Amino acid sequence: MAALRARTVLLTGSNRGIGLELVKQLLGGPRPPAWIFATCRDPEGPRAQELRDLASRHPNLVLVKLDVANPSAIADAAKIVEGKLKGAGLNLLINNAGIYAQVSLETVDSEEMIRAYRTNAVGPLLMAQAFLPLLKKAAQNSTEKGLSCSKAAIINISTVMGSIQKTSESFFKPVISYRCSKAALNMLTKCQALTYGEAGILCVALHPGWVKTDMGSQEADLTVDTSVRGLLSVLPVLSEKHSGNLLNWEGKVIPW
Amino acid sequence: MAALRARTVLLTGSNRGIGLELVKQLLGGPRPPAWIFATCRDPEGPRAQELRDLASRHPNLVLVKLDVANPSAIADAAKIVEGKLKGAGLNLLINNAGIYAQVSLETVDSEEMIRAYRTNAVGPLLMAQAFLPLLKKAAQNSTEKGLSCSKAAIINISTVMGSIQKTSESFFKPVISYRCSKAALNMLTKCQALTYGEAGILCVALHPGWVKTDMGSQEADLTVDTSVRGLLSVLPVLSEKHSGNLLNWEGKVIPW
Ligand SMILES: NC(=O)c1ccc[n+]([C@@H]2O[C@H](COP(=O)([O-])OP(=O)(O)OC[C@H]3O[C@@H](n4cnc5c(N)ncnc54)[C@H](OP(=O)(O)O)[C@@H]3O)[C@@H](O)[C@H]2O)c1
Ligand SMILES: NC(=O)c1ccc[n+]([C@@H]2O[C@H](COP(=O)([O-])OP(=O)(O)OC[C@H]3O[C@@H](n4cnc5c(N)ncnc54)[C@H](OP(=O)(O)O)[C@@H]3O)[C@@H](O)[C@H]2O)c1
Repeated sequence: MAALRARTVLLTGSNRGIGLELVKQLLGGPRPPAWIFATCRDPEGPRAQELRDLASRHPNLVLVKLDVANPSAIADAAKIVEGKLKGAGLNLLINNAGIYAQVSLETVDSEEMIRAYRTNAVGPLLMAQAFLPLLKKAAQNSTEKGLSCSKAAIINISTVMGSIQKTSESFFKPVISYRCSKAALNMLTKCQALTYGEAGILCVALHPGWVKTDMGSQEADLTVDTSVRGLLSVLPVLSEKHSGNLLNWEGKVIPW
Repeated sequence: MAALRARTVLLTGSNRGIGLELVKQLLGGPRPPAWIFATCRDPEGPRAQELRDLASRHPNLVLVKLDVANPSAIADAAKIVEGKLKGAGLNLLINNAGIYAQVSLETVDSEEMIRAYRTNAVGPLLMAQAFLPLLKKAAQNSTEKGLSCSKAAIINISTVMGSIQKTSESFFKPVISYRCSKAALNMLTKCQALTYGEAGILCVALHPGWVKTDMGSQEADLTVDTSVRGLLSVLPVLSEKHSGNLLNWEGKVIPW
C-alpha cells in the first residue's frame, strides 16, 4: 500500500468522529505530516479534550478554531495557518465537517434546508477559496507530474446519500436537507476539479461508508477505525484520473 | 401528439420568460385548463403587464402573488388557490421560477450561494409541501391508473447545468451557485418521486434547453416558443416510468 506523502494537512470538524480518527491515524502513520492543522469549532471546549491531549504529545499537531459556517472565521483561520507555514504550501485540505438531521419532506423547513447547505456545501466552497493560495503554493513547490494528494488536493467528505442515482426505493431514508446539500457538494467537487486542475490541484469527493460515529449511530456498518483506514489507503492512489469523482472508502467510483 | 388533460395548473415565475410562454400556450391549447393559477412576485407591477392583459381576456387565468423565497407568501398563496378551487384538487404544479448569476468559484460568496439555493431548490420544496393537500386531492379524485400530469404531478424546471455528469470540460460555465442549487433540485425531485408516488403524484425534473429569455440571453439555441412547445408535448406522455428523472424538452433522459 502506497503511503500518503502529504507534508501539510488541514482538516475541518476534527474534534470527534471521522475527523478525529483521521488526525489520530495521520499522526500514527508511517510518514506523519510535518504539520497537521486540526480545526474545530471550539478547540478550548470540552468537546476538543481528546484533540488537546493529542496535541500535547505531538508537536506537529496544531489546533485551530474554525466554524465552516462562518466566512470570517474561515478567513481568520487561513491567516493563522499561513503564518505557521512560513512560506510553505498546504498539500491536503480535507473538508470533513458536516451536519445531518432526521427530517423528511414533510417535516423539513426552510431554515433546516439552509443550515445544512451552509455547513455541508457552502463551507467546503469557502474553505477551498480561502486556502487556495496555500494549495497553489504546494502545487508550485512540487516537482511531481500530474495530480496527487502528496502534491495538492481538496478532499470533500461526501456520502452515497448525495448520489441521486443511488437514491432508490431499496435505499431510501428521506433526510432531505442532508441529501440535497451533499448532492450540491458533489457538484461543487466536479466544478472544483474542472477549475483547479490547471493549478495542479486534485479534487475528489469521498464517501466514508456508514460509520459508527455520533452521526452514523452505533447501528452503522463500519467502525471509525476501518472507515478511516480505508480513506487513508485511497488518498495515496488518487491521481488526475480520479479528480472530479465521488469514490467510496474502498476506492470504488459511486455514480452521481 | 397527446394533449395535456390537466384541469387545474399552477405555475411560479409566470410573468416573463418560459413561465409566461407556458401560460400563453396552455391558454391557447386544444383543451385549456379550467383554471390556470399564474403566480409571480408582483402581479400588480410593470413586469406583470402581459400577464394582466392575458387575464383580462381569459377568465380561467387567475393571477396570484407568490415569492417562492418567502415561506409565508407560499402559505398565503396556497390558501387563496384552495379557496378558488372550491373542493377540487390541483393536477399540475410547475415550479418554474429560478435565478441565475454569472459567478465563478473565485467570485461567488456565501450570500449568493444561499440566495440561489433558497429560490431554486428550497422554493420548489416548500411549494410542494404547501400544495400537497391539493395535489393529493386531485390524485384521489382521479379514476386514472398510474401516474400522469393529467392526474397529479410536480414538474420542477431544472437544467442540464445541474447534471454533474454533464458538467465537463467541453461544457463548462462555472455559474457555481446555479449549478449547485439545481443539482440539489434534481435530488429533491428524486426524493419527491419516491415519497409522493404512493399518493399518486408524478414528480419529474425538466430541462427546457438553452432558451432565449432574460436568463438564457439572445444567444441561446431555442426560441421560448420552441422550448415551451417541446415541454408541453413531453408533459402528456409522462408516466410512472419517468417519475424521479430529469428529461429535456424533447423527452430524452439526462443523466445525473
Ligand atoms: N458517519 C457516517 O455514517 C457518515 C456517512 C457518510 C458521510 N459522512 C460524512 O463524514 C463527515 C464526518 O461525519 P462524522 O460521522 O464524523 O460526524 P460527527 O460524528 O457528527 O462529527 C461531525 C463533525 O463535524 C463538526 N462540525 C459540524 N458543523 C461544523 C461547523 N459548522 N464547523 C466546523 N465543524 C463542524 C462537528 O463539530 P462539533 O463537535 O463542534 O459539533 C464534528 O467534529 C461528514 O461530512 C458526514 O456527512 C458520515
Ligand atoms: N433560459 C434558459 O436557457 C434556461 C435553461 C435551463 C433552465 N432554465 C430554467 O427555466 C426556468 C425559467 O427560466 P427563464 O429563462 O424563463 O428565466 P427568466 O426569463 O429570468 O425568468 C425567471 C422567472 O422567475 C421568476 N422568479 C425569480 N425569482 C423568483 C422568486 N423568488 N419568486 C417567484 N418568482 C421568481 C422571475 O420573476 P421576476 O420577474 O419577479 O424576477 C421570472 O418570472 C428557471 O428555473 C431556469 O433555471 C432556463
